[in-house]
Amino acid sequence: MYAIALHGAGGPEVMHWEEVPDPQPGPGQVLIDVVAAAVNRADVMQRRGFYPPPPGASDIPGLECSGVIAELGPGVTGWSVGDRVCALLSGGGYAEKVAVAATQLMPIPDGVDLPVAASLPEVTCTVWSNLVMGSGLRAGQLLLIHGGASGIGTHGIQLARARGAKVAVTAGSQYKLDACRDLGAQLLINYREDDFVEAVRNFDGHSGADIILDNMGAAYLDRNVDALAADGQLVIIGMQGGASGELALNKLLGKRGTIRATSLRGRPETGRSSKAEIVADVVEHVWPLIADGSIAPVVYAEVPITQVGKAHEMLDSPETIGKVVLRVR
Amino acid sequence: MYAIALHGAGGPEVMHWEEVPDPQPGPGQVLIDVVAAAVNRADVMQRRGFYPPPPGASDIPGLECSGVIAELGPGVTGWSVGDRVCALLSGGGYAEKVAVAATQLMPIPDGVDLPVAASLPEVTCTVWSNLVMGSGLRAGQLLLIHGGASGIGTHGIQLARARGAKVAVTAGSQYKLDACRDLGAQLLINYREDDFVEAVRNFDGHSGADIILDNMGAAYLDRNVDALAADGQLVIIGMQGGASGELALNKLLGKRGTIRATSLRGRPETGRSSKAEIVADVVEHVWPLIADGSIAPVVYAEVPITQVGKAHEMLDSPETIGKVVLRVR
Repeated sequence: MYAIALHGAGGPEVMHWEEVPDPQPGPGQVLIDVVAAAVNRADVMQRRGFYPPPPGASDIPGLECSGVIAELGPGVTGWSVGDRVCALLSGGGYAEKVAVAATQLMPIPDGVDLPVAASLPEVTCTVWSNLVMGSGLRAGQLLLIHGGASGIGTHGIQLARARGAKVAVTAGSQYKLDACRDLGAQLLINYREDDFVEAVRNFDGHSGADIILDNMGAAYLDRNVDALAADGQLVIIGMQGGASGELALNKLLGKRGTIRATSLRGRPETGRSSKAEIVADVVEHVWPLIADGSIAPVVYAEVPITQVGKAHEMLDSPETIGKVVLRVR
Repeated sequence: MYAIALHGAGGPEVMHWEEVPDPQPGPGQVLIDVVAAAVNRADVMQRRGFYPPPPGASDIPGLECSGVIAELGPGVTGWSVGDRVCALLSGGGYAEKVAVAATQLMPIPDGVDLPVAASLPEVTCTVWSNLVMGSGLRAGQLLLIHGGASGIGTHGIQLARARGAKVAVTAGSQYKLDACRDLGAQLLINYREDDFVEAVRNFDGHSGADIILDNMGAAYLDRNVDALAADGQLVIIGMQGGASGELALNKLLGKRGTIRATSLRGRPETGRSSKAEIVADVVEHVWPLIADGSIAPVVYAEVPITQVGKAHEMLDSPETIGKVVLRVR
């Protein structure tokens, strides 16, 4: 098959679409003929050499895909060759074929095109596992999402609103904030102009955010603690602003606050807090919200996989709202 | 009535047993004739001027007591004058009388002497709210308790073992570690000689502690993160080693770790995560374990309240195991 191979670490030029050995589905796995993959910031980090694949994972980038089941490995039940699926991957999505544990397969939600479905596994599993399974997001709470126009942000806004929470977002332009507002965000904060701490403390009777979904890490750590309400939870899923910072425990203790840092990629395949558990929960609870139109997938562009470099650059473009999909066939 | 009044902030000499106005039970409160109070480190911090009472709380120190109900305020049901009780207080326990919300009253567990019961509210509510309600401690997990011979430690060891968890403790002497072992601790770490990170990582097939109950704050922050297992939770309830420290978010994220900092005193009286909710849960779940002998109260000494200075000094004595009780009558 053809796949994206990394020739060293660096810019988009290290990615090459070239012939590599076909993957084989092991016990409990299926082989997918990939129709589309989607881009995650982790792919860019991996390309730059900062995020090596976990042990046992493919060297090929790509943490999610959609396609058609081509082959069942030993012991797989409940799925058939020819089923249209999307899947949460540990890697290997930038390819014509990928092998994945059947427990990480998801059906295509009603009304969603197969290529668009490639954009769903990472955002739905990340948002659901952190906001609902991990933090117990409930109606009436105030959620602050940093990077509201990202793939995570555009899905998180909609999921939180569907569950009755109020949503504040940060973004770097009015253009992006307008997109967040159209998706349901109620408090729009331009981080270049406004202080998000003051903004959430003064919003609609709240004394701060009950939950913060953060992708900035150290750069926002102290201000995020300031922005928490009593019993608030800071959930860190990215470290774009640094990996180590000063934490004021006295401020955290005064609020009975929680800081959690998580990733999806490193989770075990099965068992407690595993990918299998999250995937099953998402299909049960989020898929109906997508099928009934409460939550729309937000795809900015579909790009041929041979132009993957351009797709990576789109993540940092001021134009991009939501996910970027790579068409494999 | 007589009570301990603070004349300024400082050493034990600022505490004076003197006549002050009687408290009056407000709506939903009862007045307790205090038989005994117990000492907490927060009392020492308050005496030294570092921990002012929350708004509305008494200026008199004392966060827990036992005694007999002397009077019911308006609207109190379910309790009678003459009932023997212990109580979680927001302050005011170092006194002959104290007024407290009826939702913070607890019956005396079967088989426990009234003065000894004064030692129970803070440790049981702190340990239960943090380990069980907050962190979901379950059988087979490894719990690390810093300061295993403290009041919190001696109760935490027993509660965790009663729920089937494994317990590691740190302490500063073999004498204290022996006491922890007798209470059920399985991994004994002398922090003056041994590295607790290595110890918990190498214990009985564990890769680290699933939950750490910490009283050191900044001084242990980085090593506590190192000592966590995957999906581990660090619960900070004291800051004896400083209030602000460097947090390595990348290490935390690699483990999907959680850091929570809490206190009991600042919680609301009623509602979600309130004192009322915690007290009710403790009486339901922990009181039976005390009544059946699974958990023993650990009281190092009963001291007359007129010698409160000596009682405060006992908190830092190498001899002290468990709680120090102040006899009022």
